[in-house]
Amino acid sequence: MKAELVNPFILATKNVIETMASLKISPGKPYLKKEAVATGDVSSIVGMTGAKNGSFSLSFEKVVMLQIVSNMFGEKMTVLNDEVAEAAGEIVNMVSGQARQELETAGYLIDGAIPSVVTGENHEIRHISEGPKIAVPFSEESTGGHFTLEICFESE
Amino acid sequence: MKAELVNPFILATKNVIETMASLKISPGKPYLKKEAVATGDVSSIVGMTGAKNGSFSLSFEKVVMLQIVSNMFGEKMTVLNDEVAEAAGEIVNMVSGQARQELETAGYLIDGAIPSVVTGENHEIRHISEGPKIAVPFSEESTGGHFTLEICFESE
Repeated sequence: MKAELVNPFILATKNVIETMASLKISPGKPYLKKEAVATGDVSSIVGMTGAKNGSFSLSFEKVVMLQIVSNMFGEKMTVLNDEVAEAAGEIVNMVSGQARQELETAGYLIDGAIPSVVTGENHEIRHISEGPKIAVPFSEESTGGHFTLEICFESE
Repeated sequence: MKAELVNPFILATKNVIETMASLKISPGKPYLKKEAVATGDVSSIVGMTGAKNGSFSLSFEKVVMLQIVSNMFGEKMTVLNDEVAEAAGEIVNMVSGQARQELETAGYLIDGAIPSVVTGENHEIRHISEGPKIAVPFSEESTGGHFTLEICFESE
């Protein structure tokens, strides 16, 4: 997959979470996944259609998601409830919007569906496509926790 | 939400699973969900864009999913592994295709993204939108197990 398809999602993820939650997050090196499994305690998923069909997801460890939402709300959140899930959906929606705007500038007109948020300890997500799956690990400084960005577009 | 937007998904779900797995499944009465939570052990999710933005999901109890895939493969499957997840994705892709073809006939041109499949005992899925969420419970005869279809489209 071309870097120009992936980089907008990395930048938007960093930008949205740092802006919304005043946290310092660091992307690791993107890698091509052999197996299509992301694990997490909270995941937000957005389907995409248009110039390229695909999907992307952000899968968070519970500790990171609770810290993000606590900072967004200015109130300590301790449980993965409706409010936290809504916030996870809001984040991925903003990442989707920013990344797709960047892709449009690069010539790819891509629509985003409404997000779905999955909660459940250590669930697994698979993007079902023959196309390559790119994963980008992120770490969050204050908690030392992690989350993973995954993107998959159909092959040409 | 208009029945003409929901019925194609109910019919396609029944049609695809009965055809692919030679099982008898029965849809229950669709209902409007107050809370946006579907629970299951395996869920397939497809984002949709176009005339209406939305998403739909099929959330299966483990026993039903394993029976469906065992029948599709002609081989007893006992674990929610990659093969089962791929099959769950294939099913939802076919439902998506059939339902959207029907919607096109009714004048709604809607694209489907690539499916995502979630595995993890008793996970929860929320469709993040202000629009109404419709759920349809299904039962499968041979196992007595259940699964749930959920559809959400953005409001007008």
